[in-house]
Amino acid sequence: MPAAKKIVIIGGVAGGASAAARCRRLDEFAEILLLQSGPDVSFASCGMPYYIGGEIKDRAKLAVQTPASLRARLAIDVRVNVRVDAIDTAAKTVSARDERTGDTFDASYDDLVIAVGAAPFKPPVPGIDTRPGLFALRNLDDMDAITAWMLARIAAAGGDASAVHAVVAGAGFVGLEMVEQLMRRGLRVTLVEMLPQILAPIDEEMAAILQADLEKRGVRVITGDAIAEFRVAPGADPDATDVVLKSGLQLPAAQLTILGLGVRPDTAVVQAAGIACTPRGHVIVDDQLRTSVPGVWAVGDAIEVRNPALPGADERWAVPLAGPANRQGRMVADNIYGKARAYKGTWGASVVRCFDLTVACVGVTEKTLRARGLPYAAVHVHPGSHAGYYPGAAFINFKLLFDPARGRVYGAQSVGADGVEKRIDVIATAMQGGLTVEDLAELELCYAPPVGSAKDPVNLAGMAAQNVMDGLVTQLDWRDLAAAAADADTAVIDVRGAGEIAAAGALTEGAINIPLDDLRARIGEVPRGKRLVVSCASGQRAYYACRVLAQRGFARVDNLGGAYKTYAVMAARERAAAAAAAAATAPTANGDHK
Amino acid sequence: MPAAKKIVIIGGVAGGASAAARCRRLDEFAEILLLQSGPDVSFASCGMPYYIGGEIKDRAKLAVQTPASLRARLAIDVRVNVRVDAIDTAAKTVSARDERTGDTFDASYDDLVIAVGAAPFKPPVPGIDTRPGLFALRNLDDMDAITAWMLARIAAAGGDASAVHAVVAGAGFVGLEMVEQLMRRGLRVTLVEMLPQILAPIDEEMAAILQADLEKRGVRVITGDAIAEFRVAPGADPDATDVVLKSGLQLPAAQLTILGLGVRPDTAVVQAAGIACTPRGHVIVDDQLRTSVPGVWAVGDAIEVRNPALPGADERWAVPLAGPANRQGRMVADNIYGKARAYKGTWGASVVRCFDLTVACVGVTEKTLRARGLPYAAVHVHPGSHAGYYPGAAFINFKLLFDPARGRVYGAQSVGADGVEKRIDVIATAMQGGLTVEDLAELELCYAPPVGSAKDPVNLAGMAAQNVMDGLVTQLDWRDLAAAAADADTAVIDVRGAGEIAAAGALTEGAINIPLDDLRARIGEVPRGKRLVVSCASGQRAYYACRVLAQRGFARVDNLGGAYKTYAVMAARERAAAAAAAAATAPTANGDHK
Repeated sequence: MPAAKKIVIIGGVAGGASAAARCRRLDEFAEILLLQSGPDVSFASCGMPYYIGGEIKDRAKLAVQTPASLRARLAIDVRVNVRVDAIDTAAKTVSARDERTGDTFDASYDDLVIAVGAAPFKPPVPGIDTRPGLFALRNLDDMDAITAWMLARIAAAGGDASAVHAVVAGAGFVGLEMVEQLMRRGLRVTLVEMLPQILAPIDEEMAAILQADLEKRGVRVITGDAIAEFRVAPGADPDATDVVLKSGLQLPAAQLTILGLGVRPDTAVVQAAGIACTPRGHVIVDDQLRTSVPGVWAVGDAIEVRNPALPGADERWAVPLAGPANRQGRMVADNIYGKARAYKGTWGASVVRCFDLTVACVGVTEKTLRARGLPYAAVHVHPGSHAGYYPGAAFINFKLLFDPARGRVYGAQSVGADGVEKRIDVIATAMQGGLTVEDLAELELCYAPPVGSAKDPVNLAGMAAQNVMDGLVTQLDWRDLAAAAADADTAVIDVRGAGEIAAAGALTEGAINIPLDDLRARIGEVPRGKRLVVSCASGQRAYYACRVLAQRGFARVDNLGGAYKTYAVMAARERAAAAAAAAATAPTANGDHK
Repeated sequence: MPAAKKIVIIGGVAGGASAAARCRRLDEFAEILLLQSGPDVSFASCGMPYYIGGEIKDRAKLAVQTPASLRARLAIDVRVNVRVDAIDTAAKTVSARDERTGDTFDASYDDLVIAVGAAPFKPPVPGIDTRPGLFALRNLDDMDAITAWMLARIAAAGGDASAVHAVVAGAGFVGLEMVEQLMRRGLRVTLVEMLPQILAPIDEEMAAILQADLEKRGVRVITGDAIAEFRVAPGADPDATDVVLKSGLQLPAAQLTILGLGVRPDTAVVQAAGIACTPRGHVIVDDQLRTSVPGVWAVGDAIEVRNPALPGADERWAVPLAGPANRQGRMVADNIYGKARAYKGTWGASVVRCFDLTVACVGVTEKTLRARGLPYAAVHVHPGSHAGYYPGAAFINFKLLFDPARGRVYGAQSVGADGVEKRIDVIATAMQGGLTVEDLAELELCYAPPVGSAKDPVNLAGMAAQNVMDGLVTQLDWRDLAAAAADADTAVIDVRGAGEIAAAGALTEGAINIPLDDLRARIGEVPRGKRLVVSCASGQRAYYACRVLAQRGFARVDNLGGAYKTYAVMAARERAAAAAAAAATAPTANGDHK
């Protein structure tokens, strides 16, 4: 028998644990050493917010595997509370240290898997290391600390959770999950996001739907601002901190602050070992997940991967998601054992549930496409989650981004109460299969009234995109409606019913209301010689109207992209922002804090 | 301006209405004539069972469009209660008749769309045309008649719905939906299916899960039998009918019988016109949905389409589903207007919700693959609908069929309480994109604990299939377990925990129980020189055990396909069938009816 292969894996959460398990399946006799900092291995990091919020009650369930269970099932040498201090790629050894005892040891490897993950970003602002009640959420220790601190603050407030103010910095996936869970506990929550919108992986008009829902639930959402300082709160509560933003705004003293500002690859030791990393610190890997050094592989949040959603041949990005990390871990084991599987990239399929809404997306955003100057088109559809005649259907807000010349799908985003991630999973699969928007129009999906529609939202989005590609309709970007409405040579036609407009609100001042079903009879009321912008609630009737008008001699007819549903959300947001700005410039009682 | 194009569409439900609407979008000035038998057009036929059961309360919602709304919105000449008696393809005319007045009229066309649908099959058995309370469900008239009859029978029973016995003949999608809805109304329900299993579009071991659930709920399910006669029930109730089966079994007198025996294309007039049809009566169309006669197109339940799930170049089948009909309708309009779109075929993606279970499938079954002698393999996985540590996850029973040489996906079937059709939609999309089982293993899907798993059921099925393809594991078909267990040269190893076996039940007599985590330590207890069949609850731990055993010198080790979960369902079914057969041969009080 040849000597057993020695495999050392640094990091044992998603990618590292998957690599270890698959190595064992492939090689019963390998010596597999798994090194993990902190006391926990292979834990359910995605579940931690739900434990803090109390949705998950059994902490033991988050420890998917323990060192003991991994040893029993996989005969793996698991060492927790171990920090790797150095990698010697020439000698093929790692130097490690027990975090509790300080004892050091070396381990040699034939193959080394870097699965070190990424650490929460801590902005270098005053007070971040000294004020109490500031937490990031990386591991179960953090989770326990947050939970204990939160419960202690609630207890200190005599059990009145609403007297406890939490600030969540960063409106990404984890930040939003934490907002939901802290609200679930009854805390008062302020969400602060540096970008002009929450949830950067989707576009502003889609994020605005979620933001409006958060605000309706009482979350204070501040965008376009960031934490500048954590300061002693002058007052009775030593556990409260004044949070000061870059704009000068000072938030009410916070008893708890969660830093959800994204993550940075935890690769200092990797870089020190001469293993090639990007300027941002992500390990550079080839399609087989090999690093620049023979015998060293890397997976998970620490690596940069292909971005196959963009048309360039070697677009790359870093996407810290559990699914890709797990699959990379399995693949790296296959490749260590010579299977030469290629990792095709990460598509960014992701989802967050926040209260009753689910937000899911895949691929790249309109922001990204604009910034790169790529030709693209966007369609918005607003269908039901299932057949409208069956009870309980919820509206889905769905946006599809594509290349209008070739039909290539660039990405999709969806927000709604039901059936959201299902449609994004379908788009993600379609993108991975190279399907075009024409294929989406024709895509065959399961249908029964309780679970879908004969024309699925994915079909409808594909059909809308196909109509744009075929030139059956042209669109006006919702951002351009205000300017168009102010233009004397443009008429805005709203084809909703009058009762509908009265109930939901008018589109713009001066819009001409002709319900779709009356359009042919009242065509004389449509101004000739002007450019027409047509809208309805969701865009479907407006498309029908555009077809009528375009074929009846109106030379320039645009459908309002996203229709009233999109425009109204954004218009409300702008009004709220303007009101907030006006309030901010007005003198207030705590003006001295600014 | 050229003369307006004249388009006649026979049939205005899914395919016909879609064709009409799209024709109008493409051509504002076409003369579009839509002819529909019965009073309703463009109605939600898939919703009808839910109205009968009372889940849908508002009948008006099922009339998606009315003749008036189609006229108003689409300027279409809609004529209901019109039966087409003849098509003259040389003169390009149709002869039609008002079903109420008998008045006839002719209409000429440039393009004719056949969207006549399919009619419920009525078996030629005695009494079918004379006994009361026998219904099929094709249109809203049928729905109203069933509802009225059912409510009258409940009223006649003094409001005690459980005194009303309904027989549902045919355990396809509609039959199962009717079973659920009649049970919802409180009726006593017997389901009779000619095939040895319910729900032919999936395989027996998957269908058995649903059957067991139906029986648990009190539905009497009779498979492998069919209705032979509807006979006068001697007794006080003139509205009851004795239902006699081919086996001789006589069911308790039924006040209501629903014929859900599938559909036959309603193409007598089409065939009489010399338009080519298959021997079963389906209209033959090319990829552009043209019939054999120029200017005549066909869509929907009446046509035969490509079956792209099978490897042959020109495999065809007929799949009466609303989704394909709708998309064919839209496509035929595009093709009438010269867009030359190709219909690639119907994949059979379908779903039925029945009580708390959802069953979904796509592609072809193992039955079909066996019957054709195609090389295939099947894997069964039983993962949770979302992360196990987040509350509320339900087990999904998932079966994937594939070509073990090339990895081509042939089909998938899933049964479970949650997240079922989502996974089948993903597989359907993957099949339409030409993805292989290796791609499924690597497929990137949305994940957050409330909605999925880092390793999605689709990934797990793909990984299991990949392991089979790569020869990492071999499988024993669950049908062969009993024979293997009886073989002195085979040992069955059950790697579940002892407590688990005590709670759920033993696999087979004589199975050796060694929990997976003890396997290496207790390897001496595994008999050398025998073929080993390994099982656990779901198949995953057994796979791990197979890897341990195969690498530790056991020459022939098979994983039990489907594992205990599959085998137990089928074994229970066999025991129940044997008990029923024993009871049937025993003398009974009503033996004279046999």
